Amino acid sequence: MTYCVGVKLKKGLIFMSDTLTNAGVDNLSHHKKMFNWEIPGDRVIVLLTSGNLATTQSVVNKINEGTKQKNIETNILRTGSMFRAATIVGNLLRDAIKTNENKSQQLSNNPYSATLILGGQILGEEPKIFLVYPEGNFIEASQDEPFLQIGETKYGKPILVRALDYEMNFQQVVKLLLVSFDSTIRTNLSVGLPLDYCDFENDRFEIRNQLRIEKNNSYFSTISDGWGESLKKAVASLPNFEFGE
Amino acid sequence: MTYCVGVKLKKGLIFMSDTLTNAGVDNLSHHKKMFNWEIPGDRVIVLLTSGNLATTQSVVNKINEGTKQKNIETNILRTGSMFRAATIVGNLLRDAIKTNENKSQQLSNNPYSATLILGGQILGEEPKIFLVYPEGNFIEASQDEPFLQIGETKYGKPILVRALDYEMNFQQVVKLLLVSFDSTIRTNLSVGLPLDYCDFENDRFEIRNQLRIEKNNSYFSTISDGWGESLKKAVASLPNFEFGE
Repeated sequence: MTYCVGVKLKKGLIFMSDTLTNAGVDNLSHHKKMFNWEIPGDRVIVLLTSGNLATTQSVVNKINEGTKQKNIETNILRTGSMFRAATIVGNLLRDAIKTNENKSQQLSNNPYSATLILGGQILGEEPKIFLVYPEGNFIEASQDEPFLQIGETKYGKPILVRALDYEMNFQQVVKLLLVSFDSTIRTNLSVGLPLDYCDFENDRFEIRNQLRIEKNNSYFSTISDGWGESLKKAVASLPNFEFGE
Repeated sequence: MTYCVGVKLKKGLIFMSDTLTNAGVDNLSHHKKMFNWEIPGDRVIVLLTSGNLATTQSVVNKINEGTKQKNIETNILRTGSMFRAATIVGNLLRDAIKTNENKSQQLSNNPYSATLILGGQILGEEPKIFLVYPEGNFIEASQDEPFLQIGETKYGKPILVRALDYEMNFQQVVKLLLVSFDSTIRTNLSVGLPLDYCDFENDRFEIRNQLRIEKNNSYFSTISDGWGESLKKAVASLPNFEFGE
């Protein structure tokens, strides 16, 4: 399994992914699930992947092949908008899944299925971020719903629903994402460190920060250890229930 | 869908369930998912249900029929231990699911499937609480892992993993459970108020508190509104990430 989040903030976009992949509980490995493409001054595009590794690696390879060709219909580095880039990626995803499709199943229930988050900014447009479904269609995050999740999304969702705000700065959101990832990692064996992180600011057309949070990262330990205490205090700060006895 | 939690505390057992059932998003109704049986001074037994409503109602009816018969192998009010009571309930559950079984499917993937939490205390034993699977087998909560969940369990799990403690008192745990339910209700349409609650103290062999938390319950509103603020403060209390710029 996997957990990836992409967030659209007022100031830019933020991406975080875990790196653990597994086939059963006894076949664990680490693979990058975050990929990016840049043309400084023109565009920056980030992809997060969840699902069947053969499928997602195939999609990434085909995106890369596309960038070497002149056809603007298949080259995310030449296409004119993030909507078109998402269409290109969605088509590659659907085709990759279909290659291995089991005819008795819907694409989304298929063991070769995958789901992607694609975000970026192309000169002349606002930054955009999409969740791309196995069927190749996609939805866009907005100010009202500024985050998108793929993979093992449920454990880490309540904290984002409650505390994430479009107006936040990058540092605040990194902290919140680490809490969301920590909640997931603690309850699900199949999501694990290290985590990959990157972000970019609006209208800069380049990745600003890109880093890997390893198992021994002291900041992650501080968040992970501190969050339990903070949560207990938060619960304690609420009034107790009175049974009316 | 459903969300139910049972907790084994040092002082006794606590149970909470929602009441919403749905067949699709346009066929919602409210059904009790919490049932209890008492023989004052001898035993108290509580059942929480999740899954196909026809199946769970059938199980409850068959438990009730069993209590009118003399056979201690099928009567939870006469059987000698909670282990045996769980065996009786597990057998009824498996049989109810099998009645409608689709032969191509495992019991647990079956649309008629259901999962139960059964807790209680019988004179001569410690209180016990079990999670009963569709296959009729069951696991018991312990001091190390004091809570059991059924239904839509993921959203509300991280707060319980982090903050629930075997040594807590009932009032603290009610608050924590309401936070867990609120996290679930906010993110999943198919879990909803009102909530049912009951608890009993060790060696008292009777339900102590039993109540329904309705939509207009002012305490639930306080928790639900206050939790967002408390969470934001908890996040703010953690140190910010430094990008090393």
